[in-house]
Amino acid sequence: MNNIYIIGIGLIGGSLAIDIKSNYVGAKIFGIDSNESHLDEALNLNLIDEKATYDDLYNADLVILSIPVDKAVIELPKVLDRIGEQTLVIDVGSTKFPVCKSVENHKNRRHFLATHPIAGTEFSGPKAAIAHLFDKKTNIICEVEKTTFKLQEKALQLFRDLGMRIRYMNPEAHDKHIAYVSHLSHISSFMLGKTVIDKERNERDIFDMAGSGFESTVRLAKSSPAMWTPIFKQNRENVIETLDEYINNLKHFKALMEAEDFDAIYNEMKNTNHIKDILKGLV
Amino acid sequence: MNNIYIIGIGLIGGSLAIDIKSNYVGAKIFGIDSNESHLDEALNLNLIDEKATYDDLYNADLVILSIPVDKAVIELPKVLDRIGEQTLVIDVGSTKFPVCKSVENHKNRRHFLATHPIAGTEFSGPKAAIAHLFDKKTNIICEVEKTTFKLQEKALQLFRDLGMRIRYMNPEAHDKHIAYVSHLSHISSFMLGKTVIDKERNERDIFDMAGSGFESTVRLAKSSPAMWTPIFKQNRENVIETLDEYINNLKHFKALMEAEDFDAIYNEMKNTNHIKDILKGLV
Repeated sequence: MNNIYIIGIGLIGGSLAIDIKSNYVGAKIFGIDSNESHLDEALNLNLIDEKATYDDLYNADLVILSIPVDKAVIELPKVLDRIGEQTLVIDVGSTKFPVCKSVENHKNRRHFLATHPIAGTEFSGPKAAIAHLFDKKTNIICEVEKTTFKLQEKALQLFRDLGMRIRYMNPEAHDKHIAYVSHLSHISSFMLGKTVIDKERNERDIFDMAGSGFESTVRLAKSSPAMWTPIFKQNRENVIETLDEYINNLKHFKALMEAEDFDAIYNEMKNTNHIKDILKGLV
Repeated sequence: MNNIYIIGIGLIGGSLAIDIKSNYVGAKIFGIDSNESHLDEALNLNLIDEKATYDDLYNADLVILSIPVDKAVIELPKVLDRIGEQTLVIDVGSTKFPVCKSVENHKNRRHFLATHPIAGTEFSGPKAAIAHLFDKKTNIICEVEKTTFKLQEKALQLFRDLGMRIRYMNPEAHDKHIAYVSHLSHISSFMLGKTVIDKERNERDIFDMAGSGFESTVRLAKSSPAMWTPIFKQNRENVIETLDEYINNLKHFKALMEAEDFDAIYNEMKNTNHIKDILKGLV
């Protein structure tokens, strides 16, 4: 893999650039980004070697599409229009059904592999790129059977070199499940931040009392609205379903508080405590 | 400060023991705990030097009451009954109104200082005790004027030596504000954990897809129900109020999703993003 084109040099694209550079000595990284100042930043940070355009894509061994999911469904067909015989194209978006749908009938569909590396931070842009972001993380691959065997192999080698473990899923199941373990966490965090910020307007000094527990639960509220709005839009129905269940659980907890049923409250928490064991497998 | 009695040798009591030992060469730490196996553990871990009983308290320079808040309101008056002329008693509970109320008319009220060190982890018991837990953390002191000046001084010296910064508040304001920045975070986390665990029962492998974002938002769901149930009980009205506001914010977000008003959703997130700057001051 010599010529690697990254479309969208932010947290994910930039972090991939760092790890690919350190794994493949001969690799040359080309950057494409609608945001010119991000491209300059990426050059200055040595994330990319050169700027490029779509007209260069015929030359690519690998194209990584790491842009917001609403842009991905528009750009992916254009990318597949321009690639060469040898080119593997992957996307890394947080929703998988729409992006797969966007190219289902494209003549070059077999050059594309839909992936979702479950890795990231609450920061964004080229400066947020960090090394080893993908090490020991899960990468979910969708519709693997629609990609040519040779390019599947190429992709799997890359993910292995980056330290990722692979899980296969269909796009519908991915979008449904990820709503629970990722999208809902973001909404929970944003709304928690909002609730406390609203209060702070009237009651000074609340934040002076906040500790690491609060910090942990609202960390995701630092995330980029430009990235997350399109995710919520594309995964609207699943997200609404998770929100419904979450709100119902909170209302039930509140009802128990109102009824002063503290035995039941104890049990609610006790039953959720085994999240410990579940999370152990994660970290 | 030579003779220090810690009632309740768990995460907080044990961590205080570690820091006090390393700050005061002559200090001898006595442990009192209703859980005999915790006491043995604390001895084995060198958190305490000796076991003790309430009958020894007349001898104490400092008594730290670090037990669940429902126990604290029962034990604190008994402790104040038994202390010596020189004894300072502090509690470290997450609610402050009930504990202050429990001794408002006690003849030894002036020996007591109500404090809430905003420090902790999601773990509990003697094994959870760690060094430097209180370094650079906020300690909220309530009703400082009700403690004798000499014992105030003694307490402040201790908190300084442990690296804490001090904030003064009345107990009502403490309980109201802490509901927002701590108690609500715990409920949000427990219910998020519950929502996903419930789903996992029907849909296997959800947790395989979880990343660091999910981990961060559900971390507090590992917390001890035995510690948290009494906190929610004592701070019931404030907690219900925060829950109400949080649920309303989530319902509003859901309504925007249903209405497909993604500009408004973008703004909801954008407006909460400045939590970044707020949290910077924290860490």
